[in-house]
Amino acid sequence: MPELRKDPITGRWVIISTDRQKRPNDFRLERATLIGGEYCPFCAGHEDMTPPEVLAFRPHGQPPNGPGWDLRVVPNKFPALQVEGNLDREGEGMFDRMNGIGAHEVIIETPDHTRSLATMTEVEIERVLWAFRERILDLKKDTRFRFILVFKNHGAAAGATLEHSHSQLIALPIVPDFVREELEGARRHFEQKERCVFCDIIRQELAAGRRVIHENADVVAVAPYAPRFPFETWLLPKGHGSRFEEASRPVYENLARMLKSVLQRMNRALENPSYNLVIHSAPFSDARAEYYHWHVEVLPKLTRTAGFESGTGFYINPTSPEEAAQVLRAAKV
Amino acid sequence: MPELRKDPITGRWVIISTDRQKRPNDFRLERATLIGGEYCPFCAGHEDMTPPEVLAFRPHGQPPNGPGWDLRVVPNKFPALQVEGNLDREGEGMFDRMNGIGAHEVIIETPDHTRSLATMTEVEIERVLWAFRERILDLKKDTRFRFILVFKNHGAAAGATLEHSHSQLIALPIVPDFVREELEGARRHFEQKERCVFCDIIRQELAAGRRVIHENADVVAVAPYAPRFPFETWLLPKGHGSRFEEASRPVYENLARMLKSVLQRMNRALENPSYNLVIHSAPFSDARAEYYHWHVEVLPKLTRTAGFESGTGFYINPTSPEEAAQVLRAAKV
Repeated sequence: MPELRKDPITGRWVIISTDRQKRPNDFRLERATLIGGEYCPFCAGHEDMTPPEVLAFRPHGQPPNGPGWDLRVVPNKFPALQVEGNLDREGEGMFDRMNGIGAHEVIIETPDHTRSLATMTEVEIERVLWAFRERILDLKKDTRFRFILVFKNHGAAAGATLEHSHSQLIALPIVPDFVREELEGARRHFEQKERCVFCDIIRQELAAGRRVIHENADVVAVAPYAPRFPFETWLLPKGHGSRFEEASRPVYENLARMLKSVLQRMNRALENPSYNLVIHSAPFSDARAEYYHWHVEVLPKLTRTAGFESGTGFYINPTSPEEAAQVLRAAKV
Repeated sequence: MPELRKDPITGRWVIISTDRQKRPNDFRLERATLIGGEYCPFCAGHEDMTPPEVLAFRPHGQPPNGPGWDLRVVPNKFPALQVEGNLDREGEGMFDRMNGIGAHEVIIETPDHTRSLATMTEVEIERVLWAFRERILDLKKDTRFRFILVFKNHGAAAGATLEHSHSQLIALPIVPDFVREELEGARRHFEQKERCVFCDIIRQELAAGRRVIHENADVVAVAPYAPRFPFETWLLPKGHGSRFEEASRPVYENLARMLKSVLQRMNRALENPSYNLVIHSAPFSDARAEYYHWHVEVLPKLTRTAGFESGTGFYINPTSPEEAAQVLRAAKV
């Protein structure tokens, strides 16, 4: 059974996922070759290589777990958390733990092994967003969960082990540290000014223009003022809202459009980088969270200093966001 | 001029180090080959390949910047921060910035290219600790600085670009985020209980034993209860003290001994892993910091999921600290 443990100093929760455990000898850094081709469990026709689907979009109404789908969501075959059981929160002396209860699902974004989020059509990307929404709304009903993390690791350097385009979703009984920090900061700003800090950022960035990468009716892509990573990009919905799953259809449409534009620009300017994509959205344990503003962060994995940085959370970034924005703005789509 | 910028949401400071800037095309992930051999600027006889030394231990009193040394400290040739100038703190609308003023030094731990911290003698390792101390005490006099980060990237996967054994030191006009978090947590515990949280952890871990890797008169090495990374190891001085540079000679001796023991165990059990080592010590902007307990963290770089984790600060760890401690305890030194 995986476990959730809380660091008694910082309050940071981590997942100790012993079911995925490797023996010490297995820890040599793997080569950056991804599983592909005939062994790919995500390709059309290989449906029996995954656990049974929890959601699928099938235009012609074929039966589940066979071919004919546009998008499938399946439980992760090697889940970091386990969906059955009780949390059993308990103390171990001064330490806090609970069972590693949670859902860990994979969104197979396309049946076609050769496509990526950057090369899919806008309609196909939007479908992925609707799948996120549908899974979030479903998992939200489970009162054991407080937060759903939707993310994508693209490329080996970003932590992907499979080549076929997919995203992941983890439903958690805790709010992860990076979300807590953002929430606290946004709440502080809201309490002081009665304004959303993200709305303030959007206004200031649109007025200044220097860090704006691209803009459409509902979404603006900016290089944030204090980026941790070179070419870090935030996709901010212009309208205020605290939760991804509560956005309206035009926002999803325009987010899909913006995602395609940003990823294509990165592919062009940075030679198809690996990247992490993370949806930042308010936890549902916080009923209103009016101070928070959901958004998407795309973090290209370009430098290899992440050893130090992931150990300290202290970032040295060799590229200014002004230059990053300029390069991505200029990249032909 | 490098710049320090503050994220307006989380309050996290980052260094935008444009002097080290790479062009977009230079961002392809480099191969994991380290600079070595005749091109190594840190080998004895290559003293003219580094900036002039700021400290050296030379047993026979030879002149500076030539051979005959046991240890040298030199400014980093490609510093993340610049030592000359004023901070010029200013706002840019809602954003906060200051000039990237700071020191960035390299501690060349040995003249011998073939040695590492794990294979150096205890006396040699202790010498490295004394060099850290001496540089910290010197840089502390500069009132522009609030924190000194002492760290080591060993191996390409941990972010090292040079093979020759060395550590780094960065003096900062801000307190980095990961330190702030720890300080706040420790302060909270101290306010509630009038006890140091690290002292409490040491007492509990020594009583339980399951996560203890090794212990000597002054230092205990433990696998922390909620580790972010497989085989994450903390070296905690048993006596309470908030600052590395205020420790006593026996503590340095026993820390050197413990470092050697832990690194050798890791080399044996994990096949010479890359690792990051970070000294956690109270900022000198906080005069007393009685609630804080300095220590050393060693973070082996074994998994390649760091893409996701460095982007979110959310950690999934496939190895329990109990198993990690057992493996490292059993590793023959």
